[in-house]
Amino acid sequence: MTTDSTANIAKQVEAIGKRARAAGREVARSTTAARNAALRGMAEQIEANAAAIAEANKEDLGAARQAGLDDALIDRMELTSARIQTMADGLREIAALPDPVGAVREVASRPSGIQVGRMRVPLGVIGIIYESRPNVTADAAGLCIKSGNAAILRGGSEAIKSNQAIGQCIRSALVQAGLPEDGAQVIATTDRDAVGALIQMPEYVDVIVPRGGKSLVERISNEARIPVIKHLDGVCHVYIDSAADIDKAVAIAVNSKVQRLGTCNTMETLLVAADVAERVLPQIAAQLRQADIELRGCPRVCAMVPEAIAASEEDWGTEYLGPILSITIVDDFDAALDHIQRYGSGHTESIVTESYPMAQRFLREVDSSSVMVNASTRFADGYEYGLGAEIGISTDKLHARGPVGLEGLTTEKFIVIGDGHIRGG
Amino acid sequence: MTTDSTANIAKQVEAIGKRARAAGREVARSTTAARNAALRGMAEQIEANAAAIAEANKEDLGAARQAGLDDALIDRMELTSARIQTMADGLREIAALPDPVGAVREVASRPSGIQVGRMRVPLGVIGIIYESRPNVTADAAGLCIKSGNAAILRGGSEAIKSNQAIGQCIRSALVQAGLPEDGAQVIATTDRDAVGALIQMPEYVDVIVPRGGKSLVERISNEARIPVIKHLDGVCHVYIDSAADIDKAVAIAVNSKVQRLGTCNTMETLLVAADVAERVLPQIAAQLRQADIELRGCPRVCAMVPEAIAASEEDWGTEYLGPILSITIVDDFDAALDHIQRYGSGHTESIVTESYPMAQRFLREVDSSSVMVNASTRFADGYEYGLGAEIGISTDKLHARGPVGLEGLTTEKFIVIGDGHIRGG
Repeated sequence: MTTDSTANIAKQVEAIGKRARAAGREVARSTTAARNAALRGMAEQIEANAAAIAEANKEDLGAARQAGLDDALIDRMELTSARIQTMADGLREIAALPDPVGAVREVASRPSGIQVGRMRVPLGVIGIIYESRPNVTADAAGLCIKSGNAAILRGGSEAIKSNQAIGQCIRSALVQAGLPEDGAQVIATTDRDAVGALIQMPEYVDVIVPRGGKSLVERISNEARIPVIKHLDGVCHVYIDSAADIDKAVAIAVNSKVQRLGTCNTMETLLVAADVAERVLPQIAAQLRQADIELRGCPRVCAMVPEAIAASEEDWGTEYLGPILSITIVDDFDAALDHIQRYGSGHTESIVTESYPMAQRFLREVDSSSVMVNASTRFADGYEYGLGAEIGISTDKLHARGPVGLEGLTTEKFIVIGDGHIRGG
Repeated sequence: MTTDSTANIAKQVEAIGKRARAAGREVARSTTAARNAALRGMAEQIEANAAAIAEANKEDLGAARQAGLDDALIDRMELTSARIQTMADGLREIAALPDPVGAVREVASRPSGIQVGRMRVPLGVIGIIYESRPNVTADAAGLCIKSGNAAILRGGSEAIKSNQAIGQCIRSALVQAGLPEDGAQVIATTDRDAVGALIQMPEYVDVIVPRGGKSLVERISNEARIPVIKHLDGVCHVYIDSAADIDKAVAIAVNSKVQRLGTCNTMETLLVAADVAERVLPQIAAQLRQADIELRGCPRVCAMVPEAIAASEEDWGTEYLGPILSITIVDDFDAALDHIQRYGSGHTESIVTESYPMAQRFLREVDSSSVMVNASTRFADGYEYGLGAEIGISTDKLHARGPVGLEGLTTEKFIVIGDGHIRGG
């Protein structure tokens, strides 16, 4: 921590914001070729400076160990040579994606004679606030530049040296591609006041993307005076309908839980229609037992599955992010829908059914960022959806919902073409 | 004003929110036919109850006069029989628009075998906070119901009886169409605490649309814990480029200012390229003089236009909403762009030019909700753009930008169709 005063920090962050605003305008009007060249250059710089990045990371890791930070956090911080290569590869993948900027749609002539359409344009300046993973520095900068924006990057203080080393590569590449160095700025101070200042500058920052734990995201959402694209809970459900195919139901339920335990699109609650429960639950329970998943059930589930313990009211709204699953038997489709509305977080829900009307009702009526039929909830991510890359998954409804790719970092403006047209009346 | 305590008001508003959330779910899954029938029914109810609405309005007007409210406000409040008919006609026009809900786009097969697309769905519950015009009650309720949402309507306290009379028509029509009565609720208390409570209930309200003066909008934006779709300033510019057609330039500049003085898309500052100023400014000044527009100019303008007075620094950022225009001569396109970036509000800007490259640069580089070539800024509204109706014009960048029609009251979710697909790896 530095000893700067809050006012001093605010001044520093304001200066960063001003530079970002100016740089953002340059990035916005740059060519697709220049932005792609910048991203490929970032990849090359990261490869060329892999040793220096690893060295900076070692210093961060040493300090983290000395400070007694926990092993999981230290693991997330570590930049192995494979992880450094993955950053470079990711930047090249983003470079290869189509450019969203400048696309014009739905140009139509109006009765007045003007032509009206919409043009996709960058948001301007994007502030990304993240925790310990230093690879976010490269990913986020790449996505912002590709989509024509300037980025202000504020990573976890424990990874400051790693982030600055990566930031230096990014800035060199921007300059080499003829783009402004300040297109991507890593905030150098580790003072927490810098976050407070960053999220209160609507004149310089257009949107904040917090990436991290729930407490970080909640704090930022509550204090920000700028729109926030955020991810809160992922309490995802699979509902096995009475018209489900049993084999598909077992495979999807098991995969949704065990394919990865700690991700936001992992199933946390399984809903089973009463009239298929006897046929499907024992099989699922057996497979989950093998995967060491603790089962917490409603009374009917506990009566059917011996190893299940009684779920509490709190369980139904909990995102375990670990080897626990809550299960409830519901009377019918409507009861499943009620449960999802009451306890769900609007992230991802999947129905297993062979019934066309039930599938259609589920798709239409479940109000979540991703709604699935006969597929594992684990598919809910930007790569699987074909967005190419994602800056996060939004559980908000406005602007960007679900996996947020390049399009979520842009907006549309109206364009009007006349030939001297004036309005009458 | 009532004598309820703040806590009591908060409880009342929370109950309204809960009912709106439940009703919103019903409206969301209703058929297009039912929602259109509801809107046509609202029109019929308003026509059938025109006398009762006029009577309620008379009471509001009487109280307003007694309270000494100003004439402009009283004029906005008044519901003449023509205005009542316009409300009914507006609802029928909204009923005739295409239904945005349920549209599915960009369904594509992914390498994993799943199909991924996006489905347009309602936002849920929309809170509209407006000032004296009671017709907003009908317009806003119609737009919300059409787009599958529930509406909570909070109009100005001086028009409470008018709003309740209109609200009663709306609710009767909802019930007749088989939709929930609480699909549209008019907040009955005139206590200001009700607004504070409404904008702090993210669990029940998905978005707030404030319609009114800048101080109302700023207060709501600062205090809301819910996303706000808002309109702030409209400091609109016309830039007459050195490659402008003189006749078009004169017509567009004059129309952009005088066609209506008090609207947000009225031009407030005219920018003229130095090398056409001598040919274009005297003509424009002559026509504006005839329309009694006061001209405030930079020193070069004052030297060229005898009646112009010197503009202050403050003038360049002012939305006059009245018979004043600021004018500045700029050296070139880049100077015009700089001026717009520095003083503009991101609402609407228009270039007059016959140069293709200049038109393209302007369309691409000006970061406003509407960017025009050779057209009057007065075209910037939902009807002229073909949106059919608008709930307002957004000067925000996220979610909805520019005129906000039915699409702005909806969002998209991802839909995923599998056939038992699970994620590997």
